[in-house]
Amino acid sequence: MSLREEALELHRTHQGKLGVVSKVPVANAYDLSLAYSPGVAEPCKEIHKSTERVYDYTSKGNLVAVVSDGTAVLGLGNIGPHAAMPVMEGKAVLFKSFAGVDAVPICLDTTNIDEIVRTVKLLEPTFGGINLEDIAAPACFAVEERLKQELDIPVFHDDQHGTAIVTLAGLINALKVTGKTMQEIKVVANGAGAAGIAIIKLLLSMGVKNVVMCDTKGAIYEGRTEGMNPIKDLIAKNTNHERIQGSLEEVIVGTDVFIGVSVANAVTQEMVRSMAPDPIIFAMANPDPEIVPAEAYAAGAKVVGTGRSDYPNQVNNVLAFPGIFRGALDTRAKTINEEMKIAAAYAIADLITDEELTAEYVIPKPFDARVAPAVASAVAKAAMETGVARVEVDPAHVADKTRALTSIVASQA
Amino acid sequence: MSLREEALELHRTHQGKLGVVSKVPVANAYDLSLAYSPGVAEPCKEIHKSTERVYDYTSKGNLVAVVSDGTAVLGLGNIGPHAAMPVMEGKAVLFKSFAGVDAVPICLDTTNIDEIVRTVKLLEPTFGGINLEDIAAPACFAVEERLKQELDIPVFHDDQHGTAIVTLAGLINALKVTGKTMQEIKVVANGAGAAGIAIIKLLLSMGVKNVVMCDTKGAIYEGRTEGMNPIKDLIAKNTNHERIQGSLEEVIVGTDVFIGVSVANAVTQEMVRSMAPDPIIFAMANPDPEIVPAEAYAAGAKVVGTGRSDYPNQVNNVLAFPGIFRGALDTRAKTINEEMKIAAAYAIADLITDEELTAEYVIPKPFDARVAPAVASAVAKAAMETGVARVEVDPAHVADKTRALTSIVASQA
Repeated sequence: MSLREEALELHRTHQGKLGVVSKVPVANAYDLSLAYSPGVAEPCKEIHKSTERVYDYTSKGNLVAVVSDGTAVLGLGNIGPHAAMPVMEGKAVLFKSFAGVDAVPICLDTTNIDEIVRTVKLLEPTFGGINLEDIAAPACFAVEERLKQELDIPVFHDDQHGTAIVTLAGLINALKVTGKTMQEIKVVANGAGAAGIAIIKLLLSMGVKNVVMCDTKGAIYEGRTEGMNPIKDLIAKNTNHERIQGSLEEVIVGTDVFIGVSVANAVTQEMVRSMAPDPIIFAMANPDPEIVPAEAYAAGAKVVGTGRSDYPNQVNNVLAFPGIFRGALDTRAKTINEEMKIAAAYAIADLITDEELTAEYVIPKPFDARVAPAVASAVAKAAMETGVARVEVDPAHVADKTRALTSIVASQA
Repeated sequence: MSLREEALELHRTHQGKLGVVSKVPVANAYDLSLAYSPGVAEPCKEIHKSTERVYDYTSKGNLVAVVSDGTAVLGLGNIGPHAAMPVMEGKAVLFKSFAGVDAVPICLDTTNIDEIVRTVKLLEPTFGGINLEDIAAPACFAVEERLKQELDIPVFHDDQHGTAIVTLAGLINALKVTGKTMQEIKVVANGAGAAGIAIIKLLLSMGVKNVVMCDTKGAIYEGRTEGMNPIKDLIAKNTNHERIQGSLEEVIVGTDVFIGVSVANAVTQEMVRSMAPDPIIFAMANPDPEIVPAEAYAAGAKVVGTGRSDYPNQVNNVLAFPGIFRGALDTRAKTINEEMKIAAAYAIADLITDEELTAEYVIPKPFDARVAPAVASAVAKAAMETGVARVEVDPAHVADKTRALTSIVASQA
């Protein structure tokens, strides 16, 4: 059977991938009197007295909405909210399998930013966190920004920050391999979509000084008029201080790091050869990278990462989002801030010891069962240190809990 | 430990009552390639070609949103969406335990009718059905009516129809006990809230001719001006053809059936004595009935039902909603119509054989494991017969499936 047929059969056989279970027994009238009427009135009354107690007595604190409008699903584009359901269910399955987070798909029948924001705002009492997924740029930026302002629970657009965090983890280790530093590297990024923008923002907050971002019209610079939008304006303001203009081919010359979230074959061997010595290439276009690793290495690349599982150094969001939400939920965090994202990136990077570190192993494998506990613990610590946690927890306990909740088979390979 | 303490501990220990599970394994990279990227693209593409296939490849077909705005929670009133969470989770637990329906609480942070309707409409791609819960009258009528018009999935306000269906089931059997018929009985109802209105509407569609409904201002009649609203106007138009005025005490005289969804002690023994011979009393005020059964029987009542589990003939919605949604979901029904509701009532009533039938046993017990399969099967049949089913199924298979999915301990007592 082909992968296609097998995937269809898997989804058809189970009629989807998600189910709901009761954590309490309801076999008889006594059970019912505690879990439902009349006993259920007691937690209701407690929460009515103090809203915060909703975390003590309900599932809210472990419940995440995976929210999409279906406008940018995988590599399939704008396929709508119904067709997005398998992906959102898959995401929920990953949340559960990797970190014991109860996640529910919420596929919305609108692409209107105001409506998406308002709807998610109205859902706030039910959920402990919001994972935005597969919402097209630039709408995704406004949706996330406004929700972060309006909601008192974590809002996280995984297409942006999940990719950014894992890329940063890979870059931290790649710099160790090449002996370069964040402060000195020249970075060129190609693709100004959700992930590209988030990566650049995270690198800037890490102290990277020299960044040029390209889109299909070439370098983004302050004063450019064609093909701009408010987010690109912001990028122009905060990067490319020399206002370099030109195509990717022109601006990649002499850079240390290429970050691609664009299209297949956007980078040639010639372009790799034009970079500074020991260049680092993250070629994350899906399903086919900007340049395949073998070609990049042959042209002198020192470290190559892609989005694919069949090459080394896979930038896979699953390394980040389960542990990030685990840590945020366990501290009842009000948001997921930059410090928590950076803590997650270091937790991922630091799992690879200096002895283990090689050019082909700068990012842990997706099924490395050490990752989610380490990320959850680091994120919980950062949440407490930055004052966004509602409760204090022991980070070591968060790691232990995550380990206990994961159902993936422990493996470093 | 008191019930209060035990209920609080149960909710606190588990931090709520609901969890999410994966129906597919995700232990390794191969599993991931089928359940998530890249395999998940295949069901997405199928659904994008034909939206209806969302039922084949996703959890939508077994997923119900339990939607509340927290304005009329149990007997607690308007306690808000956070404090409503334990009840909505409890409802979801019942859906699962009794009929294998995956239900999710959706507590909305608005009491605005337009916003509730619009939000639920936007959630339609995700869910196979909508169970409205604990939304105060009269808003609940408009919310349900508009959602039924706008949505192509079943919308069911359980506080209205669940209670109405089980009351009808009890009445069907009570009439057998008393030898009276729907056409000839005189009915008086007290309480014009969600349940009261729905019961009256269902009785009218069953052919009951003589109904007078009372609220706190007495009988509702066409031309009354005080304390009316659009729903009461409709009730006035379709009941009380003689335009009888007066208090409950006055209009109960000579009636065969009292239906109370009002307040404790609204009915005296004197009032029962004033009814026609062999009166039938459904005194469903919670937690304390309009008249306690012992007093009603002492005053000559023939059949008495209440909302309480410690008296015979408990009118408990759990007899209806799990099976109704099971039958509606399994036929992918577009709505839950009157025929499906009436079929459910007969399925409940008919479980008690003529030999078993007594004045104290006109309604099956809540934990009678025969109920949900019988209801599901009858509802599926009615959905197909009335043309609202999207697929044809064998009603016997629906019953078998329901039996297989229930986790309550089989018992008739």
